[in-house]
Amino acid sequence: MNIPQSSYPRVVIIGGGFGGIALAKKLRKNEMQVVLLDKHNYHNFQPLLYQVSTGGLEPDSIAYPIRKVLQGYPNFFFRLAKVTGVDTKTRQVKTNIGEVTYDYLVVAAGSETNFFGNKNIETKGMAMKTIPQSLNLRSLILENFEQALLTDDLHERDALMSFVIVGGGPTGVELAGALAEIKKGILPKDYPDLDTRRAQINLVQGGDRILPAMSEVASEKAERFLEGLGVNVWKNIRVLDYDGMRVTTDTGTTFDTATFVWAAGVQAIGIKGLDAKEFLSRGNRLRVNRFHQVDGFKEIFAIGDVAQMETEAFPHGHPMMAQPAIQQGRNLGENLVRLVEGKPMKPFVYKDKGSMATVGRNKAVVDMKGVRFQGVFAWFVWMFVHLYFLIGFRNRVVVFINWVYNYIRFDREARLIIRPYKKQNQVSKIQLNKD
Amino acid sequence: MNIPQSSYPRVVIIGGGFGGIALAKKLRKNEMQVVLLDKHNYHNFQPLLYQVSTGGLEPDSIAYPIRKVLQGYPNFFFRLAKVTGVDTKTRQVKTNIGEVTYDYLVVAAGSETNFFGNKNIETKGMAMKTIPQSLNLRSLILENFEQALLTDDLHERDALMSFVIVGGGPTGVELAGALAEIKKGILPKDYPDLDTRRAQINLVQGGDRILPAMSEVASEKAERFLEGLGVNVWKNIRVLDYDGMRVTTDTGTTFDTATFVWAAGVQAIGIKGLDAKEFLSRGNRLRVNRFHQVDGFKEIFAIGDVAQMETEAFPHGHPMMAQPAIQQGRNLGENLVRLVEGKPMKPFVYKDKGSMATVGRNKAVVDMKGVRFQGVFAWFVWMFVHLYFLIGFRNRVVVFINWVYNYIRFDREARLIIRPYKKQNQVSKIQLNKD
Repeated sequence: MNIPQSSYPRVVIIGGGFGGIALAKKLRKNEMQVVLLDKHNYHNFQPLLYQVSTGGLEPDSIAYPIRKVLQGYPNFFFRLAKVTGVDTKTRQVKTNIGEVTYDYLVVAAGSETNFFGNKNIETKGMAMKTIPQSLNLRSLILENFEQALLTDDLHERDALMSFVIVGGGPTGVELAGALAEIKKGILPKDYPDLDTRRAQINLVQGGDRILPAMSEVASEKAERFLEGLGVNVWKNIRVLDYDGMRVTTDTGTTFDTATFVWAAGVQAIGIKGLDAKEFLSRGNRLRVNRFHQVDGFKEIFAIGDVAQMETEAFPHGHPMMAQPAIQQGRNLGENLVRLVEGKPMKPFVYKDKGSMATVGRNKAVVDMKGVRFQGVFAWFVWMFVHLYFLIGFRNRVVVFINWVYNYIRFDREARLIIRPYKKQNQVSKIQLNKD
Repeated sequence: MNIPQSSYPRVVIIGGGFGGIALAKKLRKNEMQVVLLDKHNYHNFQPLLYQVSTGGLEPDSIAYPIRKVLQGYPNFFFRLAKVTGVDTKTRQVKTNIGEVTYDYLVVAAGSETNFFGNKNIETKGMAMKTIPQSLNLRSLILENFEQALLTDDLHERDALMSFVIVGGGPTGVELAGALAEIKKGILPKDYPDLDTRRAQINLVQGGDRILPAMSEVASEKAERFLEGLGVNVWKNIRVLDYDGMRVTTDTGTTFDTATFVWAAGVQAIGIKGLDAKEFLSRGNRLRVNRFHQVDGFKEIFAIGDVAQMETEAFPHGHPMMAQPAIQQGRNLGENLVRLVEGKPMKPFVYKDKGSMATVGRNKAVVDMKGVRFQGVFAWFVWMFVHLYFLIGFRNRVVVFINWVYNYIRFDREARLIIRPYKKQNQVSKIQLNKD
């Protein structure tokens, strides 16, 4: 792939997410050649994808060109490439645009939605892990409302106006809350000829509380916030299947919906050549030691969602979230420099800065070390933290302007069907325009 | 399509562009039932599409939900529908979601790119009349640069870094200028391993001057601005064909490029049932009288790009631009109210507010009644006018913020390949990731 030879050791990073970018930034000024590979030419801020799906933010304002992160560093090379495998013997990464050899390899490929093998859910449901997926969901939600106008079959109309979101983690909770606000503030004005009160927003959680990774008080408060917004929260129910119309569960309860969002599981993105059983852990993650080295290799590292570092505090690895990835990227960056300089590496220690989730306007829950709070102040903290971690000054300003506007006007103007979503399974007999 | 019966006369408007929206706004408070049909759920601001293609603006900031324009008016109905034909005898509009009858029909369907029957250019070249097309062009430009990195064939690399834009109207001029600025300010930083000086931007015009609809002084100045930015302006050359790699012309000159943009012609969007030869005029436009009535009909009107009102000042109809469409929409709105009230209609008189085009930073040309100016002041006037006509307060703020940022930082951050563009004809043997 036309990367010049250099006398410096070459570090190949697979993935420009939170981990890969944090690592790349640490290596910028050092005597190493860095090759960053990603299948997209941008870094995207996954925690705000649900706001893209619900028309609150433009996709472009939560994405940032990777080349711009690396501008001005002559030893840095970005390639838009899809990794197809790794040959650990010849130390080569194989991609759709050719091979590249490495001295050090860092796998930071992130995670994808885990459908647990259910093909129906995979093809008929929606996921929300990438910008194109979020835009597809935005299109589908709007298309379903347009379609609801066209049918006289009340049952079909209700299904077109209803939502089932599976998974009570932050993604599911935030999406459900945003949809509830749209139901209340926007739909009655946009669709005066529909009885939008009949739109049902169902959040279905397999366990006995939502936000299970947070404190119990956060879970309870978030649930109360959701109920206040009119979301139906279902707990201890496991979704079994979805046929494009009907959701079946293990309790016998069913839901009929044209908009089914699966946010109930993620798994590490697997890479051929690193997928031998012995490395693999729960959720497809690569087992690593305290220095992020993949089991059995000194020169192959994994960080972020793909890595499972088992520690006393986190026996199943760190949470698959932005913070561990960023901290791991920084730690590994420092360690690679030390390694090249012949110094000993420093083991990774995770500093848990807490976690948070937002349910809606003035409604968020925050767990921080020693302090837990919910409500308006938590909501401001949530916004501040998300703006802070967003990459790029322009993005921060545009997101901030949108939030201020949406807050004052109770509005979300990006409710645009730029690219219609082609449904695998059309619940309605009436076909909307798909080009 | 489930539109309730009403005692008011029903006006069906085909198209939510500048004309259709201006008309709808005039009718909002009157005793008429209005049904607006569009194949998109948003109005888009076409004059800024070239900034979407070149990463300067998010697509969402130049689009506005049509339902929001009509919010709060109980006699208004929007339907996301693609019109398939009109039956003038039964007074029915046929669409992909069913039929609707009309008392008055207004055709405001706008225009599309005219490839003059050349299938090669249509399939292998790029057009820039819609938001999806503009995003495709943005993806293609970025993909071609990524691909240029991968080849050692210098000729192929040059073709991947070069542009041919056909058509010296405002679209072609503005796009060429924006690309020249990207070549100068962004590409050398993003692609330090490419010799981006070799990137050629060619603007090809069939006539003997660019911006032929403007004054000669504007044409000359714009050409000088373009040349100052390093654009090659070719005049009196007609492009004959494009095979995905080579552009052939009537003078024998050829260009090799992987990015070929066709901005050399538009034609009105035809509607079945209104396409009998007798109505049709140049460029597929419907001939209308001073009241916008289509030849032979009292209850069918046409406005904007689809209408050709032949007057002494404009023997071939008004220019296919936003201003005539807006003014015609407003005039027709007033006339429909008068018609329903039994008053005589007022003939349309076009107030030419002038025209303008921007070439780049601090470089624009403006022709107004009695006054022509170019340069920095013209550029500020251009920006002010475009912000003014943009629909929506949020859009104006976001566009303004982006312009200020881009101006200060010499940057365009939306250089994102959100949806890769699948080329019909791949110039390179190296295939980039397309999913």
